Amino acid sequence: MVNLKSALLVSTVIALTALKPVQANESLPSWHDGPARDAIIEFVERVTDIESPDFVAPADRIATFDNDGCLWSEQPLYFQGIWALERIRAQAADHPEWHETEPYRSAIAGDMAGMMSAGEEAVIKMLFEAHGGLTSEEFRQSVGQWLATAKHPQKDRRYLDMVFQPMLELLDYLRANDFKTFIVSGGGIDFVRVFSEEAYGIPPEQVIGSTLDAHFEMRDGVPTIVKDSKLMLLDDKAGKPVGIYRHIGKRPIFAAGNSDGDLQMLQYTTVPRGEDDTSARFGLIVHHTDEEREFSYDRESHMGRLDQALDLAGDNGWLVVDMKNDWKQVYPE
Amino acid sequence: MVNLKSALLVSTVIALTALKPVQANESLPSWHDGPARDAIIEFVERVTDIESPDFVAPADRIATFDNDGCLWSEQPLYFQGIWALERIRAQAADHPEWHETEPYRSAIAGDMAGMMSAGEEAVIKMLFEAHGGLTSEEFRQSVGQWLATAKHPQKDRRYLDMVFQPMLELLDYLRANDFKTFIVSGGGIDFVRVFSEEAYGIPPEQVIGSTLDAHFEMRDGVPTIVKDSKLMLLDDKAGKPVGIYRHIGKRPIFAAGNSDGDLQMLQYTTVPRGEDDTSARFGLIVHHTDEEREFSYDRESHMGRLDQALDLAGDNGWLVVDMKNDWKQVYPE
Repeated sequence: MVNLKSALLVSTVIALTALKPVQANESLPSWHDGPARDAIIEFVERVTDIESPDFVAPADRIATFDNDGCLWSEQPLYFQGIWALERIRAQAADHPEWHETEPYRSAIAGDMAGMMSAGEEAVIKMLFEAHGGLTSEEFRQSVGQWLATAKHPQKDRRYLDMVFQPMLELLDYLRANDFKTFIVSGGGIDFVRVFSEEAYGIPPEQVIGSTLDAHFEMRDGVPTIVKDSKLMLLDDKAGKPVGIYRHIGKRPIFAAGNSDGDLQMLQYTTVPRGEDDTSARFGLIVHHTDEEREFSYDRESHMGRLDQALDLAGDNGWLVVDMKNDWKQVYPE
Repeated sequence: MVNLKSALLVSTVIALTALKPVQANESLPSWHDGPARDAIIEFVERVTDIESPDFVAPADRIATFDNDGCLWSEQPLYFQGIWALERIRAQAADHPEWHETEPYRSAIAGDMAGMMSAGEEAVIKMLFEAHGGLTSEEFRQSVGQWLATAKHPQKDRRYLDMVFQPMLELLDYLRANDFKTFIVSGGGIDFVRVFSEEAYGIPPEQVIGSTLDAHFEMRDGVPTIVKDSKLMLLDDKAGKPVGIYRHIGKRPIFAAGNSDGDLQMLQYTTVPRGEDDTSARFGLIVHHTDEEREFSYDRESHMGRLDQALDLAGDNGWLVVDMKNDWKQVYPE
């Protein structure tokens, strides 16, 4: 039967944890005390306080995060791009036509500026072509092996060690307050799923990303999913709200990004649906201002260009996080 | 501070609820005692018992359910089809070309046999065309209003009251054992999402279904998703494993269906990936055998034809649920 001492202990733990899901003053330890951290905490307390007019039921606490440049670094090239370029070079001998066609020609030659001048969309399409014909298992193994060992050319860190510690804390803080956290990435849905659970605590069913078609077959009696080359969703810019609608079917109340590719996700999440819509909403932009600890870029960058969304942040009330001044630490120890 | 009496009470409740998530002998009350109910409970106890060699971590307890004919009735026509036909007839005057083209001509004339003779795929495509150009909000309102009032022509029940009570209990039982339950429907993802949370306790982000393309626009300053007519996923037959892969990114361990449209989902879920794959898996087929309380049909039916999957059930070890003899009750009181 129930032991009195343990009963008291258990009840005390319950009484304490029932006070608040997370003590705000212990949250977000890698964020400097200041307006950015305060704004996040103020919003979360407002939508989780049942007495507040802005209270949001847990089922509707949907938070969406871009991945490249928002949860981990993206310079000098999206990390998925580095993996895909290695695959394209490895396959180049079997594709003589690539040597005549941009952006393949520049990619094979290692001319990144030439490659990017073909335009972001053409580059993304090329990078996805590197996956065609792989089974889902082969793809997972290829990416998993690469992530386990490959290192960033400048930072001498594994790519998985280039996630942003303050953003990991933000994900944890939101989940501790019954938010459901999703990734909404311009990168490939299957690529991000390989590491999202381990790196971010986000299970594959909460990852949205650019999506290739696929088909099912019984291959030698084994049920198999094979990736095709046709792009079904380019989950970037105006594709992000479509991806959210398709996968979640609800409008988020919190969105975080770092580039013009996230503009429409921020608008979809935060712009009122009409005069009657006074619901509480939060938009966040990670501004890469820290040349020393990470990278510094915005309006002129080929990767993660932040221009229009930065201009619109003020009018829309989006929090622009200054990495250099708002974060005590960038990468995990 | 903590009151002793309430401390004891709380602790006792904890001690009791910690025994087992759900007492098996209280579960599935609308299922007759017998081999079908026993097989389900035996499987769930096996994969949730941490001492069992078949134990599955909660994150991997993915269960997928077909909707039409599996969670609610589907005769004389998929209920979404009844709604869509009403919309097609209402729009027929604006589309003179429909009067010359099958299956539109038969649909407008109310000739169901003629309509179905155009083939299931053509009918599904036509029915989806009824959604094109609607905003997501207009669509939700149209379906919601219809479901609130429209009644089944033979059963004199609202369609929402034609869900299967034993399947609602199965969903609850699985969730009480930390399964994550998904719908994987040949019907439209947005249609099912209108009622899935209320009817089944399944939130929109856990609904997969046939999917139309959509686009995002700022319409008069309001962020808006507009449904297009192009079908991006026909979530039926070999499309179901693709939909599962795209939305969940994990292979389910439990799948339930009722027709040949669910065959590949059942294979994907239960057929071993190779000789090394001895993981515990469960396939379930609802067999419509109850002409009196519901409908009786299988190999010859235009809706929910069950033929090949029924032949393959034995060899694959799928549980074939006999509605007439395994269920005490079909619809909720």
